[in-house]
Amino acid sequence: MNDKGILIIISGPSGAGKGTVVEQLKKDDSYMLSISATTREPRNNEKNGVHYFFKTMEEFQNMIDNNKLLEYACFCGNYYGTPIDYVNENIRNNKVVILEIEVQGALKVKEIYPEAVLIFLTPPNMEELEKRLLGRATETPEKIELRLKRAKEEFDIIDKYDYIVINDSVEKAACDINCIVKSEKMKACRNLNLKHILKGDN
Amino acid sequence: MNDKGILIIISGPSGAGKGTVVEQLKKDDSYMLSISATTREPRNNEKNGVHYFFKTMEEFQNMIDNNKLLEYACFCGNYYGTPIDYVNENIRNNKVVILEIEVQGALKVKEIYPEAVLIFLTPPNMEELEKRLLGRATETPEKIELRLKRAKEEFDIIDKYDYIVINDSVEKAACDINCIVKSEKMKACRNLNLKHILKGDN
Repeated sequence: MNDKGILIIISGPSGAGKGTVVEQLKKDDSYMLSISATTREPRNNEKNGVHYFFKTMEEFQNMIDNNKLLEYACFCGNYYGTPIDYVNENIRNNKVVILEIEVQGALKVKEIYPEAVLIFLTPPNMEELEKRLLGRATETPEKIELRLKRAKEEFDIIDKYDYIVINDSVEKAACDINCIVKSEKMKACRNLNLKHILKGDN
Repeated sequence: MNDKGILIIISGPSGAGKGTVVEQLKKDDSYMLSISATTREPRNNEKNGVHYFFKTMEEFQNMIDNNKLLEYACFCGNYYGTPIDYVNENIRNNKVVILEIEVQGALKVKEIYPEAVLIFLTPPNMEELEKRLLGRATETPEKIELRLKRAKEEFDIIDKYDYIVINDSVEKAACDINCIVKSEKMKACRNLNLKHILKGDN
């Protein structure tokens, strides 16, 4: 059976618990979070190649021009993107590479990388999402309102995703994603070489 | 999350171990093997609605004419087919309905029932398949030769299947199929109603 690596993209509204689920997944060595390229200045302890690949604007523009980014976006004047070579190298090394990106970026990646698996992580309902955002106690009521509105918009396009995972417990959500990865690896379209192995062809 | 039933079709060469894997799956009450309709006469202890739905040729022809069969085929002068109503009723009752049918029938079902999940069960290689067929000690060398030839032909179309499960241990193969079913139930396309539940729409 194919034990090649695989690219999974985890999206979901702010408050869905993406970060904690990814941390849970990473306890298994076969999982790793992709490192983004950015034009932002490194903060205190941030290391190049660990937290980000730090790039000048010119280097970043070069990556865009040479199709070296799976997707990129600009936040607050800084560019962030996913380096294709880094993702491919880790997939060749049999890793489950995780991208944690927002919905529009995820759909862009799927277009140019159709074997990527799109997973939408969601709390069980809007009430729970609101409860979690309120629980953070770091956000203004206006910001929470905005996040809830944004979540509703995201729910509208979940049919463009491959899978929906409901995060009512971190362990269960990670276990569900594990099951999706295991199952994806059994897909016939990912195992076409098996035909020849089974038949004993050279 | 969607806990509706699902239709899975298990095919694979003679000697792949379909029967034992299905028995293993059926230990879980949510799984059931579909019952075929047939024009064949009941044998000793065979009961209508348990082993088969026994039909006259006229009744069977009626089922064909009214599109009441997912697929059907004729072996040794007797007709065998899968009753749509029976399958649908059990799926509504949240069952994982298993069809154990050959490759051509499976592809026919997928055409008219695209949400069916096609699983190709296979031994790890031709040598193992040959060993298992020889181990049965019930078949002539000519018959074994024929089965191996047939298996090679079947391997040629595994890319038409959704998943490939290698049966090197019955428990592992059943566990793999369990994982496929669990994962299929998380597919976005099977959970479109979730959009409204998440948003709290009426």
